[in-house]
Amino acid sequence: MSKIGFIGLGIMGRPMAEHLQAGGHELYLVRHRAALPPELLAGGAVECRSHTEVAQRADIILLMVPDTPDVEAVLFGEAGVAQGLSAGKLVIDMSSVSPIATQTFAARIRERGCEYLDAPVSGGEVGAKAAALTIMVGGSEPAFERARPLFERMGKNITLVGDNGAGQTCKVANQIVVALTIEAVAEALLFSSKAGVDPSRVRQALMGGFAGSKILEVHGERMIKRTFEPGFRIALHQKDLGLALSGARALGLSLPNTATAQELFNACSARDGGADLDHSALVKALEALAGHEVA
Amino acid sequence: MSKIGFIGLGIMGRPMAEHLQAGGHELYLVRHRAALPPELLAGGAVECRSHTEVAQRADIILLMVPDTPDVEAVLFGEAGVAQGLSAGKLVIDMSSVSPIATQTFAARIRERGCEYLDAPVSGGEVGAKAAALTIMVGGSEPAFERARPLFERMGKNITLVGDNGAGQTCKVANQIVVALTIEAVAEALLFSSKAGVDPSRVRQALMGGFAGSKILEVHGERMIKRTFEPGFRIALHQKDLGLALSGARALGLSLPNTATAQELFNACSARDGGADLDHSALVKALEALAGHEVA
Repeated sequence: MSKIGFIGLGIMGRPMAEHLQAGGHELYLVRHRAALPPELLAGGAVECRSHTEVAQRADIILLMVPDTPDVEAVLFGEAGVAQGLSAGKLVIDMSSVSPIATQTFAARIRERGCEYLDAPVSGGEVGAKAAALTIMVGGSEPAFERARPLFERMGKNITLVGDNGAGQTCKVANQIVVALTIEAVAEALLFSSKAGVDPSRVRQALMGGFAGSKILEVHGERMIKRTFEPGFRIALHQKDLGLALSGARALGLSLPNTATAQELFNACSARDGGADLDHSALVKALEALAGHEVA
Repeated sequence: MSKIGFIGLGIMGRPMAEHLQAGGHELYLVRHRAALPPELLAGGAVECRSHTEVAQRADIILLMVPDTPDVEAVLFGEAGVAQGLSAGKLVIDMSSVSPIATQTFAARIRERGCEYLDAPVSGGEVGAKAAALTIMVGGSEPAFERARPLFERMGKNITLVGDNGAGQTCKVANQIVVALTIEAVAEALLFSSKAGVDPSRVRQALMGGFAGSKILEVHGERMIKRTFEPGFRIALHQKDLGLALSGARALGLSLPNTATAQELFNACSARDGGADLDHSALVKALEALAGHEVA
């Protein structure tokens, strides 16, 4: 069993930490905005006063925070993780952040004789609670093997994709496919509905064929039933497509449909509360252009 | 068992006709360009001299031809089906053609006291041979029930979507989703590859999660292994997206990513032989812009 520092006990992080504790691991936590979850403390988690103390007392430090600047602040900011590290420790960033910045973070951590994995996840709150996350990992084979027992407590489809940064690149690829498949389903259901055909029958007919996907099943149903509570918020998907588009510009490639999907998310966000809707609400931007709703 | 006229014995139509004959149905055929398949004749198929004669001798007339003008010519052209119809017969168009023209064809057939179903399929040559086609049907409930035993010989996922035209509308929706999912996978794999990450590991990591689909599995692999023999030809998918885009204009709605996918297909077709490649070769248009191949 390992001594694990867990930084970022939000909607995703909290159930992930619970699974690790249930697996017998010892947790080292730090209070952020709210008090620490009483269940974790009751289960034996140790409260530390700073990220530095977490890094001093734990052997493996996990991060699950919102964005690239948050990772940077936790690792290298005042009273940060880096100050508390000693050789041989392992830092695992499970947040979804910039692949390019990740390579820099990893290099700075490795300079201290430690190992670094980027290990973003997909599957959302439901996947986190069910310990069924997809985990996309970048880093060395030995570091991956060291972390594997922890990953297996939190997820199911666990892949070492490549070196540091590759996990984050894979997550960006995942978010491109998810956004564009939502957009595809939205175009298809809106076309059907405006042509006078029941979109729920179209969804049914398409499932199981080459047009079938989890997105058609889940997000297609949300578009038809008009249930746009998240789920996964548009604001977060905008962050991810931002990484895709800035990455594309830096790398020198064109992602035309990702750019359009981002514009449609932007149009949704322009309306009151739009950024807080589930990403399946992208369909609303197309509906506004057509003056017609799917259902 | 029924007397079935089968018009259009191409790559798709021939195995479909074989399944019907194997099910004990009597086939009435007409020679088009090539001689009739000897296996079907040996199995008892009757050779007619015209589409009119097919319609006179069969009770149910199936069409499986390339495009809207072909359906119109077979039904209403010289020595066409319509001239041979008598009340009570059933015409089933399994081609993928215009939903709007289909409504007109259906009305003209119904005027003669006959029934009409539009019943386009997806699943391609593989699905046709395996009798595993997805069949999307537009028409009346009684006509659908009358045709169901034939559909069950040829396909698996069989749905009555709505009135005449709804089957074709559903097929257009299917082709929108398929094209845009191929495009999504192409953007994601190209992004990964240009960032220096092995696209086959990314494909592996994404399968089973929310980004997973049959397209990621099959077409993603074709992009990585560079196997672009059809499959489903780009020229045919251009025809289908043409129906989507002209339909969108007529109905008053915007399909931005369908429009971009069509442009990428157009760019593929602009090169020698591009139109005859599998639709997964859409990735080549994005690769040309990036000056980099996925694999």
